[in-house]
Amino acid sequence: MAGNTFGRILRLTTYGESHGAGIGGILDGCPAGLPLSEADMQRDLDLRKPGQGRTATARKESDTVRILSGVFEGRTTGTPIAFHIANEDQRSRDYGNLAQVFRPGHADWGFFQKFHGIRDYRGGGRSSGRETAARVAAGAVARLLLAVHGIHVQAAAVELGGIAVPPEERDLNGALARPYFAASDSVVPLWDQRVAAARAAADTLGGIVAVRACGVPAGLGEPVFDKLDALLAYALMGVGAVKGVEVGDGFAAARHTGSGNNDPLTETGFASNHAGGILGGISSGQDILLQAAVKPIASIPRTQQTIDREGRPASVLVGGRHDLAAIPRIVPVLAAMTCLTLADALLLQERMQALPESMLPQPRPAALQRRRS
Amino acid sequence: MAGNTFGRILRLTTYGESHGAGIGGILDGCPAGLPLSEADMQRDLDLRKPGQGRTATARKESDTVRILSGVFEGRTTGTPIAFHIANEDQRSRDYGNLAQVFRPGHADWGFFQKFHGIRDYRGGGRSSGRETAARVAAGAVARLLLAVHGIHVQAAAVELGGIAVPPEERDLNGALARPYFAASDSVVPLWDQRVAAARAAADTLGGIVAVRACGVPAGLGEPVFDKLDALLAYALMGVGAVKGVEVGDGFAAARHTGSGNNDPLTETGFASNHAGGILGGISSGQDILLQAAVKPIASIPRTQQTIDREGRPASVLVGGRHDLAAIPRIVPVLAAMTCLTLADALLLQERMQALPESMLPQPRPAALQRRRS
Amino acid sequence: MAGNTFGRILRLTTYGESHGAGIGGILDGCPAGLPLSEADMQRDLDLRKPGQGRTATARKESDTVRILSGVFEGRTTGTPIAFHIANEDQRSRDYGNLAQVFRPGHADWGFFQKFHGIRDYRGGGRSSGRETAARVAAGAVARLLLAVHGIHVQAAAVELGGIAVPPEERDLNGALARPYFAASDSVVPLWDQRVAAARAAADTLGGIVAVRACGVPAGLGEPVFDKLDALLAYALMGVGAVKGVEVGDGFAAARHTGSGNNDPLTETGFASNHAGGILGGISSGQDILLQAAVKPIASIPRTQQTIDREGRPASVLVGGRHDLAAIPRIVPVLAAMTCLTLADALLLQERMQALPESMLPQPRPAALQRRRS
Amino acid sequence: MAGNTFGRILRLTTYGESHGAGIGGILDGCPAGLPLSEADMQRDLDLRKPGQGRTATARKESDTVRILSGVFEGRTTGTPIAFHIANEDQRSRDYGNLAQVFRPGHADWGFFQKFHGIRDYRGGGRSSGRETAARVAAGAVARLLLAVHGIHVQAAAVELGGIAVPPEERDLNGALARPYFAASDSVVPLWDQRVAAARAAADTLGGIVAVRACGVPAGLGEPVFDKLDALLAYALMGVGAVKGVEVGDGFAAARHTGSGNNDPLTETGFASNHAGGILGGISSGQDILLQAAVKPIASIPRTQQTIDREGRPASVLVGGRHDLAAIPRIVPVLAAMTCLTLADALLLQERMQALPESMLPQPRPAALQRRRS
Repeated sequence: MAGNTFGRILRLTTYGESHGAGIGGILDGCPAGLPLSEADMQRDLDLRKPGQGRTATARKESDTVRILSGVFEGRTTGTPIAFHIANEDQRSRDYGNLAQVFRPGHADWGFFQKFHGIRDYRGGGRSSGRETAARVAAGAVARLLLAVHGIHVQAAAVELGGIAVPPEERDLNGALARPYFAASDSVVPLWDQRVAAARAAADTLGGIVAVRACGVPAGLGEPVFDKLDALLAYALMGVGAVKGVEVGDGFAAARHTGSGNNDPLTETGFASNHAGGILGGISSGQDILLQAAVKPIASIPRTQQTIDREGRPASVLVGGRHDLAAIPRIVPVLAAMTCLTLADALLLQERMQALPESMLPQPRPAALQRRRS
Repeated sequence: MAGNTFGRILRLTTYGESHGAGIGGILDGCPAGLPLSEADMQRDLDLRKPGQGRTATARKESDTVRILSGVFEGRTTGTPIAFHIANEDQRSRDYGNLAQVFRPGHADWGFFQKFHGIRDYRGGGRSSGRETAARVAAGAVARLLLAVHGIHVQAAAVELGGIAVPPEERDLNGALARPYFAASDSVVPLWDQRVAAARAAADTLGGIVAVRACGVPAGLGEPVFDKLDALLAYALMGVGAVKGVEVGDGFAAARHTGSGNNDPLTETGFASNHAGGILGGISSGQDILLQAAVKPIASIPRTQQTIDREGRPASVLVGGRHDLAAIPRIVPVLAAMTCLTLADALLLQERMQALPESMLPQPRPAALQRRRS
Repeated sequence: MAGNTFGRILRLTTYGESHGAGIGGILDGCPAGLPLSEADMQRDLDLRKPGQGRTATARKESDTVRILSGVFEGRTTGTPIAFHIANEDQRSRDYGNLAQVFRPGHADWGFFQKFHGIRDYRGGGRSSGRETAARVAAGAVARLLLAVHGIHVQAAAVELGGIAVPPEERDLNGALARPYFAASDSVVPLWDQRVAAARAAADTLGGIVAVRACGVPAGLGEPVFDKLDALLAYALMGVGAVKGVEVGDGFAAARHTGSGNNDPLTETGFASNHAGGILGGISSGQDILLQAAVKPIASIPRTQQTIDREGRPASVLVGGRHDLAAIPRIVPVLAAMTCLTLADALLLQERMQALPESMLPQPRPAALQRRRS
Repeated sequence: MAGNTFGRILRLTTYGESHGAGIGGILDGCPAGLPLSEADMQRDLDLRKPGQGRTATARKESDTVRILSGVFEGRTTGTPIAFHIANEDQRSRDYGNLAQVFRPGHADWGFFQKFHGIRDYRGGGRSSGRETAARVAAGAVARLLLAVHGIHVQAAAVELGGIAVPPEERDLNGALARPYFAASDSVVPLWDQRVAAARAAADTLGGIVAVRACGVPAGLGEPVFDKLDALLAYALMGVGAVKGVEVGDGFAAARHTGSGNNDPLTETGFASNHAGGILGGISSGQDILLQAAVKPIASIPRTQQTIDREGRPASVLVGGRHDLAAIPRIVPVLAAMTCLTLADALLLQERMQALPESMLPQPRPAALQRRRS
């Protein structure tokens, strides 16, 4: 199966290249009756808009989204929601020299091999980070759907260029208001210096993004393969530039002992959350905690060694306008993918209501009654 | 969709609980003509057999697999390959006390919530690590299929209880012959001490497993969502106890600069492999490199704080026979999931042959001719 | 994707060949809490058991089903339900001569071409009608699930060897108690004569099966491609020997005028049911009415013209023990496929509950309130 | 899963309502390198354009398609092909009165029930026949892909208003040049009279469409559920107005005897084609023959009895401009669905190439060598 569809009940299929007519998608499976407008999508899209912030390029794309179907009189109708974002301000000439060579660290080589030498090389074509706009637009619908159920997803940068936000300062709530969508105020001047140094060195930076989902009910996720953490790892690792994903304590958990890593259950809830809100692949009702490692931008402003289509040595200087770090623009993308994953899992779990309450074991355990109320 | 099916072209569906009749699965989509016997599956199954090694329990399950369909006169026929592994040596009475309480760090709570209070609590039921035997049995078929195409997958433990194999000593080749399936000889006595200390402290350990796939052709993986690294992250994170997944340099890549992280292309191949063999979600032809963080075993031999089905405080002492670490038994499981993912991606990529060579751009680039030859 | 999985939420994957170890399947996605035993499956299986009735062979297979997972203390647990039916009374020697030639009207040629000359020729292998036992076993679970929601599926033979049950005599209710699972008593002696004549002529017969589903709520089916009638056509046409499927008036509707074919809506329901309970691909709340054309059994007791593996002319006399008509044994198979399709559609529709009632338009139209009550 | 995606390897997802911004779709999984232009899609779209022929309405929609992605320098790139057809000449006021009542024979009631009282009632919204334009646009790509492999699909009307083309006169080749896309010239004046009479009677007509696919290689289709005939039945029955589907002799086969229905294999091919080119769910290499029953148009120009949203009796006179029969416009739609199904099955079958020729049984049977050459 071609790889441009995401989700099972709430299904997003996307299209579009960096320098074609535009990008967009079809979101199928959204329940009827959800209030939705283009402004709802635009709000999230504006968060990943280029041309903002200290790590950004000078491109000015307005990324204006248009809804083409599935909404009537201000509400979703249950039919497919198509949306389109026209490409603007394309300067394809910047990329003409890329037809013959492969940019190191980019998808050029893979697409060339996969599609038998055929590719739209302008700005990376389909492999451009620009495709993530469609994810964000659809993620906005998922976000609204989750909000109806009291679920909220937040994301923030917690590390940039090797400089991490101290754990005790982490504040995801206020991130969207900060430069870099940073998880603390204190780190911003340090990151400013780091970015300035990288820019001076004609280099680029990577970082780490944290995502948190609050209000997720217990019971989401489908063992044994479609565990909730497996689906989230798939969702986040599928975003370009992500090279690692952690749930809860992640790699640090590998160094814990069992007695330190287990989260005791108490009458008022779990006593800790090393697991990151997912036990045995099923949401526990605690906050879901994720981290994604983001590699440095591959398009560095230097001449690099490479080969051409004939396999001969060549050099390449990547023109165009490129960000210095995927942070902050990747932050709303990772939040969107988390929203899409959780909304899909939520809609899928609803099927469990298929047996009448009266058929389930009686009396109902108190723990379960709490969840249902 | 229920979550017990893995893969798109090569599809594995599994079943079974820890203390039911047995576990098994159906592997659908395997090409006709592959030589296959029960011994091929058994060889891999024996690698995850309990009762071996210093971190193991004393259980003695023979885990004997029987093929029920899809093989005729020693070859696969292209029809579904069903296999069954009967459960033996079950001591369900060890688990009787678990009907009323939730073990910390286990899936008990999630299953209870997900399935409305109904669960097979004996040995964890479906959430038992025992389900991974079906993955390993099916993974053996994928391994044979990959071998036909010159692809080989290896896995090894590279860290246990916080003690890592030094990078320069890593040797995945010989791991299956070493205790712990360790990536070096030198680390074995250190791990022995670490394990002894944990056992004395009535505690358990976690670790890190590395997986490498050699011989993978360029072109596997389906952007934008079904990137090869996304599928691998899904595959590994879906194994119980895994809390983090890295591709290539993983979280370390977040601290690199672009100039240090890019892998230059040269006439004779890539000059480095920070990317771990995947660029833009598509295999590059280099070795694929993965790491998985494995949390410590949740069943510690101590009384722990928890709640019962009614939500009241309770304590639990997990009986039964439990490993002290998921390592080494998780090593062949992670290798199997990697095999299944790669074989599926390989079979899916074959569809690209659908246009005759004569329809593709001429003359063929030299780089591509190399790949095809 | 390999073709041995059926359904989206309630997913059945089957395996097995006519002369292998047995046949069976995994039913995934069944809600937790449904009372289920092997006897429930066996009851339906016994309806398609060979060796009964005037069109049957002399084979005596007990077709005893064993549940291997997914049921605990008499209820489904929400995990995969695996079941196995061991093959018995196999006389493979009857089929030895079929290794070299292709039986006319059978799947031999197709399997040979599809799987590159590799096939289990014994009794048709995977293409044997025997695979339908797995469908019936799983269909029994779907039937129980539907019953919980007040949905009941009935099927009966309405035509055999060209002799049809008069429309006004059709009674699907009592069919299981009649020979041939016939839709009327009056037709039985006529069919007896037709069968005797065919047997004397060393020939076989076809017929037509009607299926009716009562109690189906309005709203099932997913336009535009997964219309309920499209899914049912897929389900029934996928049963071996079925060559045509009709919904409601079917081909007769092609000869109606619009004024005669439309079903008027009245205060107390629809005034007619030409549509067969499905409008625009969505169930209307009326009875769902289907018909399937069943071709005559291809294994006729005569020497037939064919070719061998080398493409040379050959003759074949199909030995083994074969029914004279697929009726009556195909009747419970078609009912089972209808049950599986409807249960899957029902579970999928549940996802639409994902918005709270309070978010939907107020006040609720009376028509809709009726449905919900 | 939402129902607006069709296919497994070649996947079409569509969107759009009758009176929204437009309709369109995303075709994912098309191999790279196929020459494709908007003109290729437009040619097929023009065949279903309204405003032509004796059964047509007076609407004038230009149905101009625009390709938004997936094509670069005149060839497909292997990435998703998105296309959009803007709606024009909408006279929504014609439909204002339909907000409160349900048109008999239409999907109004089903959508109302399915989506909780929410629907875009203008012109049927998503249930409008207009959605089939997206199928035809995508079908054009499938048709080109099939042509590369020597496969050609033809369709024609073989019955209208109860008047059938005599079997011996059937000529699908020339159908596109005839009025009604009729399968013979002789029937045209008879149909003209039948249409005139229906129009005078303020009524509408149904008919039967035949589809033939030539050049299909043996081996397509995936038993046991995804048989090729099952997939085709799903594809055709999923087109609005289709109430029955036949393969080969269809319902007539139910009246054959086995000796008359079996197609003997001979050295030069099959001696007959009762099976319609599919045996055991797998293509045999013969022509694939299908028939679809098309019900009369539900929008008759008369006042009809119905109910309103509150369930009260009401009458409705359907305004707007409606065809008198789905023929001829449904003919290219059914051809398109057949193309999409066959192209998908063809691409899926390619996966079976995954074992090298050298691993398959040697020497190769002559029958198979023929196929491969």
